[in-house]
Amino acid sequence: MKQNETLTTHISLILNGLLLQGLTTAVIAPGSRSTPLALALAQLAHEQRIELFVDVDERSAAFFALGIAKKINKPVLLICTSGTAAANFYPAICEAKISQVPLLIMTTDRPPELTKVAAPQALDQDHFFGNQVKSFFELPLPETNHDSQNYTNYIVQKSFQIAQNQPAGPVHLNQPFRKPLMPDLPIKLDHNQQKYTSFSSQTTLSSNLIKKVHTNLSNKRGIILAGPNQNALSNIAMLEWAKKSGWPILADPLSQLRGISSPNIITCYDSLLKTNSDKLIALMPEIIIRTGQTFVAASLASFLKKSQATIYSLDEENALNDYTKTTTFSLETSAEDFFNQIPPVNPLTEWLKEWSVIEKVYTSINKINSTDTLNELEVVRAIASTGSKKLNLFVSNSMPIRDIDSVLQPLNAFRIFCNRGANGIDGIVSTALGVSTKSAENLLLIGDLAFFHDMNGLMMAKKYRLKIKIIVINNNGGGIFSFLPQAGSSNFEEVFGTPLDIDIEQVAQLYHAHYSLAETVTSLKKYLCTPAHSLEIIEVRTDRKDNVALRQELINQFASHIQTTKES
Amino acid sequence: MKQNETLTTHISLILNGLLLQGLTTAVIAPGSRSTPLALALAQLAHEQRIELFVDVDERSAAFFALGIAKKINKPVLLICTSGTAAANFYPAICEAKISQVPLLIMTTDRPPELTKVAAPQALDQDHFFGNQVKSFFELPLPETNHDSQNYTNYIVQKSFQIAQNQPAGPVHLNQPFRKPLMPDLPIKLDHNQQKYTSFSSQTTLSSNLIKKVHTNLSNKRGIILAGPNQNALSNIAMLEWAKKSGWPILADPLSQLRGISSPNIITCYDSLLKTNSDKLIALMPEIIIRTGQTFVAASLASFLKKSQATIYSLDEENALNDYTKTTTFSLETSAEDFFNQIPPVNPLTEWLKEWSVIEKVYTSINKINSTDTLNELEVVRAIASTGSKKLNLFVSNSMPIRDIDSVLQPLNAFRIFCNRGANGIDGIVSTALGVSTKSAENLLLIGDLAFFHDMNGLMMAKKYRLKIKIIVINNNGGGIFSFLPQAGSSNFEEVFGTPLDIDIEQVAQLYHAHYSLAETVTSLKKYLCTPAHSLEIIEVRTDRKDNVALRQELINQFASHIQTTKES
Repeated sequence: MKQNETLTTHISLILNGLLLQGLTTAVIAPGSRSTPLALALAQLAHEQRIELFVDVDERSAAFFALGIAKKINKPVLLICTSGTAAANFYPAICEAKISQVPLLIMTTDRPPELTKVAAPQALDQDHFFGNQVKSFFELPLPETNHDSQNYTNYIVQKSFQIAQNQPAGPVHLNQPFRKPLMPDLPIKLDHNQQKYTSFSSQTTLSSNLIKKVHTNLSNKRGIILAGPNQNALSNIAMLEWAKKSGWPILADPLSQLRGISSPNIITCYDSLLKTNSDKLIALMPEIIIRTGQTFVAASLASFLKKSQATIYSLDEENALNDYTKTTTFSLETSAEDFFNQIPPVNPLTEWLKEWSVIEKVYTSINKINSTDTLNELEVVRAIASTGSKKLNLFVSNSMPIRDIDSVLQPLNAFRIFCNRGANGIDGIVSTALGVSTKSAENLLLIGDLAFFHDMNGLMMAKKYRLKIKIIVINNNGGGIFSFLPQAGSSNFEEVFGTPLDIDIEQVAQLYHAHYSLAETVTSLKKYLCTPAHSLEIIEVRTDRKDNVALRQELINQFASHIQTTKES
Repeated sequence: MKQNETLTTHISLILNGLLLQGLTTAVIAPGSRSTPLALALAQLAHEQRIELFVDVDERSAAFFALGIAKKINKPVLLICTSGTAAANFYPAICEAKISQVPLLIMTTDRPPELTKVAAPQALDQDHFFGNQVKSFFELPLPETNHDSQNYTNYIVQKSFQIAQNQPAGPVHLNQPFRKPLMPDLPIKLDHNQQKYTSFSSQTTLSSNLIKKVHTNLSNKRGIILAGPNQNALSNIAMLEWAKKSGWPILADPLSQLRGISSPNIITCYDSLLKTNSDKLIALMPEIIIRTGQTFVAASLASFLKKSQATIYSLDEENALNDYTKTTTFSLETSAEDFFNQIPPVNPLTEWLKEWSVIEKVYTSINKINSTDTLNELEVVRAIASTGSKKLNLFVSNSMPIRDIDSVLQPLNAFRIFCNRGANGIDGIVSTALGVSTKSAENLLLIGDLAFFHDMNGLMMAKKYRLKIKIIVINNNGGGIFSFLPQAGSSNFEEVFGTPLDIDIEQVAQLYHAHYSLAETVTSLKKYLCTPAHSLEIIEVRTDRKDNVALRQELINQFASHIQTTKES
């Protein structure tokens, strides 16, 4: 019995349009106004045409969708009801915008006659996410008008493409619905629905430019600074080029280059720059090529500012991605196109070797201590020594990503994720869980404060029996502030340290997680080597102040070893 | 030793300016960019010039500030660092905008040279909350320039006033800071700093209008529909007028009129309208005066649409507050000014009595059952019978506020709060806890889903040893959906019911709360009568489906009693 044919046709158009574009996954936060989409998606999920996740906390839901999209590099559909529900999506949307993750956000809304007249749960959702989205579209109400239906089909498909096209990012669709909200189930998808196709273009550098750049790069001490990057093809081209040219690549942990066995890959740069060693003079490059997004290490920013080198930035999307403002030549090209089109230069003798020697020195001291005592740096070393090629490591912001940046020298090249757009400590648990839905081996490294911030996110692990290990570095508060000038101030603990005294084991119980307390490196490595069968929380208790001393000690040690190397 | 005099002067100006305006309370979410304000506020808090709360989850922090502002009716200062931190404020800001709660949001930001160039943790915070705030101002960087300093002082004081003036609401200030971020402590406040004063104006109705309105209202069967309202003076004037004129007042639970012992106060309207009784014909008014914000009961909207009455809406702020679009005359005046200036009319015999009789019938059946079994309606009745005049009752959205609306006939007039602007189930715990910081007797009525959504909010109760009782109606999922058409659909539990299987006792343990399971009305009343010494969580387990039947039964019973009354 067809009661609501217009509504049913409308949502079929939308969902079929998205399936035509390649939609595979949707996340929905329950509510009333989104009822037609929720019921239709549940049906499509049961028919295995789509994977559907339901998350009651919209903030977590949005980060969960972000995690999935990070892993699959395709837009994920994210849906909620009207009102403040949508506002909870905002943090994840900001992150998606800066870190260029494709998301298709569909907020549902009251019909026009119920907006701006103080109807319940109605707020102005027009351009609700401001300039934090790539595009905003108001979808029409379900209508029998053919042009309106075509428009709906066109807009949803275009939105998917806009979200996906470089630079990828979030696109917001606002969909008003009028009551009654019950569609006629099951909805049917029209096999003849028009599909819109778009092709992405490649950059072709002119032969003149190629010649000029190649000349500029030749016979110079050059390095590549590889920032965060999702494109495996870029890395293949870059590594090939660097090998032939004898250039070192300073590999940000999010470049996806760490763990690749090659003398060109340099990971010690953050500690090296902090040594302020004389040795740095010999390592000063004449040319720097920057690729990828903003690197994690603040020390690199100072290095760029002090450097006399000519700096090339590959800025495909003209995203002004250089906050150091040191770029000499900005090229609107992808790293893939650049390294495939510019011929390699002749390697200079000794140049790469100078770097490799220092890298080896660092590797020799950056190792698990003999006393088996666990601390924040040993956790990173334990991960480096146990992580398999299949591992998906999600790293929280604040201290964990900095520890990873300074210390991670992995045996294998595994995938590393981080919300390194806006660098928030919000939504980390959910983003990591989102990633985990599409991969077999999952590990999250997170501090107690970020863990608490998105504790609600754990509900999805319980509900969908997701398999992930979470290492909670519990130093009872905000570790990073101990590195800042206010560390000695009188109200430090109250406004910066903020100890929360969370009982991690109780949290684990609440979400039916397996809990372990790791007290030695050996025990931590043991936990890391056993496959995760469910949600596993491994607590490591550390002291915030210790970490400051620990890192300084490592740098001092590195400095003295470099000195020895130089003298020998 | 003065190292950072310009920065110190700047933040002194800001905080002193706000103190001059009457700022009493600040909530800060920790971060690095907000360091100067955090340290200065901590100092002022230790000097007892201000009350300061630190909340690590920005979403909770914003709702916490909202709760305080609801209770004190003055702007609360809410501060965070740059980046996604601010985005977490968005849900509470949307709620503050619609429900007209004064909030002064200060997001801190990177300096201009670090925005839009992919610097870490930098996003475009300009007009970050779109049209969900009353005003947005970009504060200048700390400067020695005298005009700039005056501008800072002026803007912060004006922002406070804008947030406070009717209609109250959120105002957003974005404050960029350049490193170094350490102010010279202690900051000193300048006793001679210029203060800006603003006066609010009153509406004076013209004598012509008064005469005309009075004539229209005379000799008519009139009712007052009193919606949500914070203004006690309005209520005094309205009640006085109604008593003299013999008009019933249909008192929304958020009107602050329930529990006032007066034959004019009618609370049975929601159940009455749902009976569809013939009796309703005799109760149909010729005139309706609407005051306050949008009422809770959807049944009233249908009633207004069906009614043939002339409808006056008192819409002081021209807020188009009538989504039923049934208003005949809209008056830009406050209820206080209206009822003080329009003379009462002569009461019609029998009119008020007709209503009072029905109200008494409802009171006689809307009472605690003899079997002592607990259900969602009995919880409301238990609160009605135990709540003292000092009680501050916070009611969650979705089912609890609807249950309260239909059933609450309290013995005492206590204060009832609800986030009834955008009606979200997010941030309820934090908003209630915010209210509780400024009152002695606190009770929150909430379902398990909303409780889960803002579980993080409980951290503030633990940290600041807040005294509040929380009744968690645990029906394991979203109760309201059982009242909607999709209740019978095949994927109902998956996308609407969403049982989370939360162990409330474990949550209580995690936050060091006292936990009780109430299984009878008697035990619940006992828990309610004992003063709260800390955070107390009282779990009441119910069945989602039962509630639908229970409410229908109450309405059926009411219908049959009305019938009897009529016939007798």
